[in-house]
This record gives sequence, C-alpha cells and structure tokens, in this order.
Amino acid sequence: MNVLIIYAHPYPASFNAAMKDRAVDVLAQGGHEVKVSDLYAMKFKATLDLDDFPDPCNRSFFSLPNEMMAGYARGKLAPDVLAEIAKVKWAHLLLFQFPIWWSSAPAMLKGWIDRVFVQGFVVDLPNGRVYADGLLAGKKAMISATMGSATELYTEDGPHGDLNLHLKNLWHGTFEFCGMEVVPSFYVFNAGEMEEFQVEAELDRWEEYLRSVL
Amino acid sequence: MNVLIIYAHPYPASFNAAMKDRAVDVLAQGGHEVKVSDLYAMKFKATLDLDDFPDPCNRSFFSLPNEMMAGYARGKLAPDVLAEIAKVKWAHLLLFQFPIWWSSAPAMLKGWIDRVFVQGFVVDLPNGRVYADGLLAGKKAMISATMGSATELYTEDGPHGDLNLHLKNLWHGTFEFCGMEVVPSFYVFNAGEMEEFQVEAELDRWEEYLRSVL
Repeated sequence: MNVLIIYAHPYPASFNAAMKDRAVDVLAQGGHEVKVSDLYAMKFKATLDLDDFPDPCNRSFFSLPNEMMAGYARGKLAPDVLAEIAKVKWAHLLLFQFPIWWSSAPAMLKGWIDRVFVQGFVVDLPNGRVYADGLLAGKKAMISATMGSATELYTEDGPHGDLNLHLKNLWHGTFEFCGMEVVPSFYVFNAGEMEEFQVEAELDRWEEYLRSVL
Repeated sequence: MNVLIIYAHPYPASFNAAMKDRAVDVLAQGGHEVKVSDLYAMKFKATLDLDDFPDPCNRSFFSLPNEMMAGYARGKLAPDVLAEIAKVKWAHLLLFQFPIWWSSAPAMLKGWIDRVFVQGFVVDLPNGRVYADGLLAGKKAMISATMGSATELYTEDGPHGDLNLHLKNLWHGTFEFCGMEVVPSFYVFNAGEMEEFQVEAELDRWEEYLRSVL
C-alpha cells in the first residue's frame, strides 16, 4: 500500500514527530511505500490565495471554484500544489499527523487541505461527484492527533464535547465528502505532560493500532 | 462599543469583502468604534512556529503552552502577535468574517487564532480560568460566514450535517472556552452564485441582523 503522511508540527523533537517517525518505521517494516509531506520542514504555504492560480481563466473576476476546476483541468496550478496532488494520486492511504489546537487542526494542516483539495480533483460538484461518488473514492484517510488536554474534557458530556464531533468537518465534511473511506482516528491525550515511559507506551500503542488497521 | 473585525478572504472584490465593508459602515453609523484586521491584506503569517517566541524560556526543549505563558507574561512574543493582542484587549466584540472552506474556517483565520489566542492571555489552564472564568469574559464574539453550498446540505439531516456543529470548535471550543459570550452566527449560503439583486438583498439582510444584535 502507498501511504502519504501529511505531518504538521513546528518542532522536530515533538511527540508528534516521534509518532510520524514510528509510523514511517512500522509502514516500511510492513512492506508499504511511504512518502511524508513534512509541512513545516517544507515551509509549505498555508494560505490559499490568488497566486495559487498563475494562469486564471477569468482575469476580471475571481471565482474560487471556477479557477480551481479550470486550473486543475489545464494543469495550471501553483507548482507546490501540483506536487502535493501527485502524492495524493499516488497514495492509497492519507495519514494526517498533527496536534489539536483549539479543537481543530493547525492552520498549516488546514492550509494543505484548502490548497491541495482542488475542486475537479477531489470532488466534481457540477456533476454530483461527492460522497460515495467522490473523486477520491477507493482511497482511505485517517487522523492521528495529539492533545494537551485530558480525555475527560472531550467526552460526549465533557465541557468541550465529543472530539470526534469537533473534527467532523475533517473526517466527514472533507474525507468522506471526497469519497474516501475513513479509518477511525487515533488520539493521544495529555501529550504535553508525559514522562518518558509514558511516551514509549503511547508510541507502542500507536504502533499496535497502526498495524491493526493496515 | 469597540468592534474588531477579523476578516479573511483573498479577493478584495469578494462578497465577503462587501459584508466586511457593510459592517464597517453600519457600526460607524451606530457610533461604534471599529478596527479591521484584514488578514490577507496584512499578509498575516498564518502558521504558528518557533519564531513566534523570539526569547524562549527554554532553549533546549520547546513546550508550546510554556512558551506562550512565559512569552505573554514577559511581553516577548512576535510583534504582529502583540499587535493583534492589543486589538483584542481593546475590543468588546470580535466579529469574524470569512468564507467556509471544507466546513471550517480558512487556514488564514485559523492561524490568527492559533497565534493570537495565547495561553495566559485568553485562558489560564493551570488556574482553571476557562469557560465562565475564561480571561476574555465580558467580551462577545460572532461568526459571519459565507458558503458556496446550498442550505440543504447543511441541515441537521442533510449530507454534511448541521453547520453549527461543524463550527463548534470555534464558537464553543474557542470563544466560549475563553469566556466570551457568543452572538448567534450569521450565514449566507450559495454565496458564489448570486445575481446582483441577491447580493444587495443579502447585504441588507446582514445589515438588519447586525443592527438587531448590537
């Protein structure tokens, strides 16, 4: 299986980085092909703007869906976007590794979605190619995320509410909307306050989970 | 009342820009003070990284909450973050104007939250200053957002599910978590396909709504 890890953490010695590294090792041991988009290391441009469309189909008025569809159809998108699109095409599984900030993905990761998930490539709205008929059907997607908070904050009756609901815009409104099958998310809570033995235990739990879903 | 509009759309002739402009006019007519953070025009850096902490309290290991709390306490944060913090302190109402991309805020707007909502300024976790005791208590926050999709997609039983739930990470997990009172959101659906008369009607509906909640 070809696996693309989309990884977004600003600190190379973070626990998130260790999770990404562990995933790379486990996947390679399992005979899978792995590519990593290390968004901070790549200095990936997180903000979608008009520079993403170097050869606009309409120079007098900017319509985002129109420019996306025309740009994708003609291969006229920003080079870094085209490079990420090629990786997504190659991948059978997209694995998103990130810290949860404000009950959602960091801007860096959201920006990768905003820019790379181009209409015409991932969905085709005019022709109803969404959800089961989405253009990424046949691929899988999975969230692996860490959180500073304790589990109790994010239970269904906890003060924040169910974390899966907070992330529904990602696994449902994005992944499933584009036709991908969602692998249940993996979470590590209290990630900022772990002792070394807990770090190792959580990495082992992650490895075991990852092996179980491959 | 002091109102800070946090506005994130890449195209100055967009409907979002018109909504922002209308809000500025209505607020000024009502005798309110208004500041606008036009994030794209400011070329606001959307990605939180280690450069946000120019004088780290721990140079051998990066802990985001620790650096935020220490940096805020000592006034040692990136200058653009300090400038936005000053605006938030000044404001009684934070009005967020943005297009909904992938059932959530654009990376540019999420990045403003990631970087400006510094622990120690908006919440104080070690001392339990969250929700009703959050450090932004007394302020109000409101979402005004546009969407390309039709309303039907975002009903409770629609394919995407309730839009308010998708945005709960923002109005609940962020605004309410920091102690702010949430003004019910204002949405414009089908924003990409409006005729000129519909644009005017929606701007008038926005003006009426805004006047009703001020």
